[in-house]
Amino acid sequence: MSKINGVLLDITGVLKEGDSPIKNSVEAVARLREKGMKVRFVTNETQETKKSLVSRLSKMGFTLTEEEVISPCPAMAHELRRTGLRPHLLVHPTVLEEFDGVSTENPNCVVIGDCAEHFSYENMNKAFRVLINMSEPLLYSLGKGKYFREDGELVLDVGSYAACLEYATGAKSKIVGKPEPTFFQTALDMMQIKAEEAVMVGDDLVSDVGGAQGCGIKGILVRTGKFRPADERHPEVKPFFIADDLHHAVNHIISLL
Amino acid sequence: MSKINGVLLDITGVLKEGDSPIKNSVEAVARLREKGMKVRFVTNETQETKKSLVSRLSKMGFTLTEEEVISPCPAMAHELRRTGLRPHLLVHPTVLEEFDGVSTENPNCVVIGDCAEHFSYENMNKAFRVLINMSEPLLYSLGKGKYFREDGELVLDVGSYAACLEYATGAKSKIVGKPEPTFFQTALDMMQIKAEEAVMVGDDLVSDVGGAQGCGIKGILVRTGKFRPADERHPEVKPFFIADDLHHAVNHIISLL
Repeated sequence: MSKINGVLLDITGVLKEGDSPIKNSVEAVARLREKGMKVRFVTNETQETKKSLVSRLSKMGFTLTEEEVISPCPAMAHELRRTGLRPHLLVHPTVLEEFDGVSTENPNCVVIGDCAEHFSYENMNKAFRVLINMSEPLLYSLGKGKYFREDGELVLDVGSYAACLEYATGAKSKIVGKPEPTFFQTALDMMQIKAEEAVMVGDDLVSDVGGAQGCGIKGILVRTGKFRPADERHPEVKPFFIADDLHHAVNHIISLL
Repeated sequence: MSKINGVLLDITGVLKEGDSPIKNSVEAVARLREKGMKVRFVTNETQETKKSLVSRLSKMGFTLTEEEVISPCPAMAHELRRTGLRPHLLVHPTVLEEFDGVSTENPNCVVIGDCAEHFSYENMNKAFRVLINMSEPLLYSLGKGKYFREDGELVLDVGSYAACLEYATGAKSKIVGKPEPTFFQTALDMMQIKAEEAVMVGDDLVSDVGGAQGCGIKGILVRTGKFRPADERHPEVKPFFIADDLHHAVNHIISLL
């Protein structure tokens, strides 16, 4: 078995829930760093900017920099600047600034992120009309999560709303975020390690564990956040390890060193 | 070819759009009756009660009775009373009265209708949570339309929002409404005619024309309402006839008598 040199961590449901750190998760991240592990935070968070996310996590006691966070909005903005595509942005108002300098005039694609209460009928119809008027509807979805846990309750995630637009228009979403392989590869490249030297810890069986394992990264599922008991009996995605929480996961990772 | 004895008419996009009758449609329905045709109005309308719909159409000049209208809410309420299922109702507030007497305590299924602006993130999350907490999520969808035209603009229909809940929960909707065969069969039974004696006129290629033709009823597509030119090149659904509007469709039907 290869030596483990890097750990990829999901944020919501693993490090924190809402504005509270999950028990012992601050210490668990600190222990990984003490052991000399490279750490990256690989999130599908699109309700706030990277800057705001890092600031909020820092206040909870986590030590991290913006450069260590891989999130969909900056990756999407990069792709839009590279291709010159002009998006209709169906994203949370707080992340609009991540798209500064991207032209949205006369849009020729739609970008959908997690909009929470901004997933109104009116906003969905606006995005729908842009797509239905294109000869080949082009839809980018910032992740494909079904739901997540927030303030103790499950809520619909961006992937479910993307499915609504797909059904209505016949578009097939292009994913920017987990479980898309290039997203994990970006983290590996930044750490300058190979897939077999890395472990991903997440609460989403498909996006975190399945996505990572599809790239050859070991996937650890935690029983926090959106975890549901049925996840342990999934017919296709079999985690490398299932941990009660991040603390437990880190103990297991350290035992492998 | 069999003699035509009955005509099934879709309402929105065929007879009217918003609160206005489509040009010559009032006269077209009257001509069918003059020719001795049995007429039924087969609609997936779930934003208003059958009573309100008939009253509104009457004010526009159409002659029809509530008994001639086949719509999803009364059919769904009948099914709920028959089975004793207790729904969580994600339906437009104006049609709640169609479900009078149906218990919604401790729900064991979800019924989704066209809610328009009531398709809020909050309402979608409530329905989602009922489904995700069931061991076998049971979702009834009042139609499976992708979108329709309202006040000159295309808007998302119930089928698209059902697709959102299906993706999130793994449920597969049971359809009550077009294009479900029993819905068309109800109209045939009421008219006491066979499928080959009937014609369906609609603006929805899949729900109206495809649904009808799946039952052996001839399907006429009209180029009004939600019709889009691409509908004429659909790889699977080939209408019996394509008419500019209901007036044109009725001329064609009469020419077959």
